Amino acid sequence: MGEFGLIRKLTKDLKPVQSSTKKAVGDDCAVMDFGSKKVLMTTDMLLEGVHFNLEYVPLKHLGYKAAVVNFSDIYAMNGTPTQITVSLGISKRFSVEDIEALYSGIRLACERYGVDIVGGDTCASMTGLTISITCLGVAAAKDIVYRNGAKLNDLICVSGNLGTAYMGLQLLERERLVFALQNNLNQPQTTSNPQTTSNLQTPDAFEGREYLLERQLKPEARRDMIEALRKAGVKPTAMMDVSDGLSSELMHICSQSGVGCCIYEDKLPIDYEAAALAEEMNLNIVTCALNGGEDYELLFTCSLDDYEKLIPIDDLYIIGHITKPEYGCNLVGRNGEEIALKAQGWNAFQS
Amino acid sequence: MGEFGLIRKLTKDLKPVQSSTKKAVGDDCAVMDFGSKKVLMTTDMLLEGVHFNLEYVPLKHLGYKAAVVNFSDIYAMNGTPTQITVSLGISKRFSVEDIEALYSGIRLACERYGVDIVGGDTCASMTGLTISITCLGVAAAKDIVYRNGAKLNDLICVSGNLGTAYMGLQLLERERLVFALQNNLNQPQTTSNPQTTSNLQTPDAFEGREYLLERQLKPEARRDMIEALRKAGVKPTAMMDVSDGLSSELMHICSQSGVGCCIYEDKLPIDYEAAALAEEMNLNIVTCALNGGEDYELLFTCSLDDYEKLIPIDDLYIIGHITKPEYGCNLVGRNGEEIALKAQGWNAFQS
Repeated sequence: MGEFGLIRKLTKDLKPVQSSTKKAVGDDCAVMDFGSKKVLMTTDMLLEGVHFNLEYVPLKHLGYKAAVVNFSDIYAMNGTPTQITVSLGISKRFSVEDIEALYSGIRLACERYGVDIVGGDTCASMTGLTISITCLGVAAAKDIVYRNGAKLNDLICVSGNLGTAYMGLQLLERERLVFALQNNLNQPQTTSNPQTTSNLQTPDAFEGREYLLERQLKPEARRDMIEALRKAGVKPTAMMDVSDGLSSELMHICSQSGVGCCIYEDKLPIDYEAAALAEEMNLNIVTCALNGGEDYELLFTCSLDDYEKLIPIDDLYIIGHITKPEYGCNLVGRNGEEIALKAQGWNAFQS
Repeated sequence: MGEFGLIRKLTKDLKPVQSSTKKAVGDDCAVMDFGSKKVLMTTDMLLEGVHFNLEYVPLKHLGYKAAVVNFSDIYAMNGTPTQITVSLGISKRFSVEDIEALYSGIRLACERYGVDIVGGDTCASMTGLTISITCLGVAAAKDIVYRNGAKLNDLICVSGNLGTAYMGLQLLERERLVFALQNNLNQPQTTSNPQTTSNLQTPDAFEGREYLLERQLKPEARRDMIEALRKAGVKPTAMMDVSDGLSSELMHICSQSGVGCCIYEDKLPIDYEAAALAEEMNLNIVTCALNGGEDYELLFTCSLDDYEKLIPIDDLYIIGHITKPEYGCNLVGRNGEEIALKAQGWNAFQS
């Protein structure tokens, strides 16, 4: 079919919904008009065998997630995602139907979040699947929230439970190994055939744990939290999304804002299914909540003056407060003991 | 060193030069202010073994080219490139020095063209090197040139010689094979070690042909032509850059503009070194000029009224004119014979 044919097939019937999109696919560039607003830009690359394993990640879910993680970065600046470009490197073992499934996930995410696909690049790959998405967003200058604005005594908030996506990954990995042992089929993942993935879905092991899988396979960006904060008249002082783990992100905010922080173990929002699985797998759920990545929740700081406005907001958890820089970044345990976040080993999850 | 350490090393001392760049690397997103101007966006993905072969492509050149091909797309809309994000997938066989070399090429291109690096993503790859760059540019609404504006009797122009980058590639490929045979070392390219590439440079074979190599390894975007046209008071009616070959691009312009075209073999700008090498390699240089990709010259159409203004412009070649759609897309040969561009086999170069 060739590159052009595939691109035509994937992008046909795309209907821009953003008024800022003046020209989408079909020329050397897309053209946008943001009026007097500021433009936000973020990018994310996903590589097979590193960021995803097609033995258990359905292609449609993968496409959805690849788009949503970019939207999450735009929301983390208190902006609205508006356009993406999608570049795909595709090896021969993928059929046109596979790529359509992947793309349908990207399109679904775009429809749900009101984002236009305005361009991209599709090419043959000698190796695995590569997905690179760049997202533009828009915000009024006065609304943008950076990482560096946290102030002494600010409240530290998160938009939902933490460590859950990580536990979903552990569950998938465990079942993959069980399946591989049972079938004596432990092939290296880079040569796996995406079309055999459905074999993995052994319903028993996953029953009652769909939420954990969803958090890992099909995360959502917290547009609802951004809208709730706006409605409540609260502008966070600093914000980012939790993609690498709470400890890591919190230390970014503190270092860029020149402050310290204190968070409380008993305030960490933890899902009970995730906790049960952690128990079963001999993992410390608090460590998972602190260091497990890919939750795509929003982590933000707010002025203490906004406390009353924050309380009624659904799914908003206040987990601690900002301190003077010399205090460092600390977790207060259930028995009152203080543990430095750095010493907790948050870097161990980084590759 | 870890991902964060590498990113810090690569992006340290980056100094934005564009007034539209409000926040570059270091947050969830970059932030730009384009005032009332339109925003252009383009993206390009380069995969090892498909778009480049590290046996003969120096990493610094590769970085330079990866950036420049994006700038070329922005100029092809008559815009000015302003910001890029750079995503890299890096496998273990690359040292930090390799990646610094690659990035130094990207930075050099950005310095020369006045473009800011405002973000990106750097991650481990299980396979080869992956480079994905997305570029933003800016233009006043009235200046933007699309592909669909060509009108009957418009002049068809190109900004420089064609087929030269393709001949450069042929030369490199030939010498690679000679070298491989001599050394009995014909390893698959995806496992080649980038640090051994310098062995290939056997000066004899390349002497006097440096220009061909440069066209392939280190192309430039034709900012100078955009500036010359502006200075001459000419706004093209349609424009794109020649990345896939003249025939292919011309047919895009014609199909999107609803017109036909007639170009003349004896008007095609052909470099004499490229012609000599084609002769030596038994290739038809006209076919190479029509179908060889990666020249990154500008192909554009201008009103006949602008003829006098176009003549004094250096490196501008008028190769034909726009016709009625029913005429189709044709090349007039040296003996007056007409050959349909489609029948010429322009699609053979597409993968």
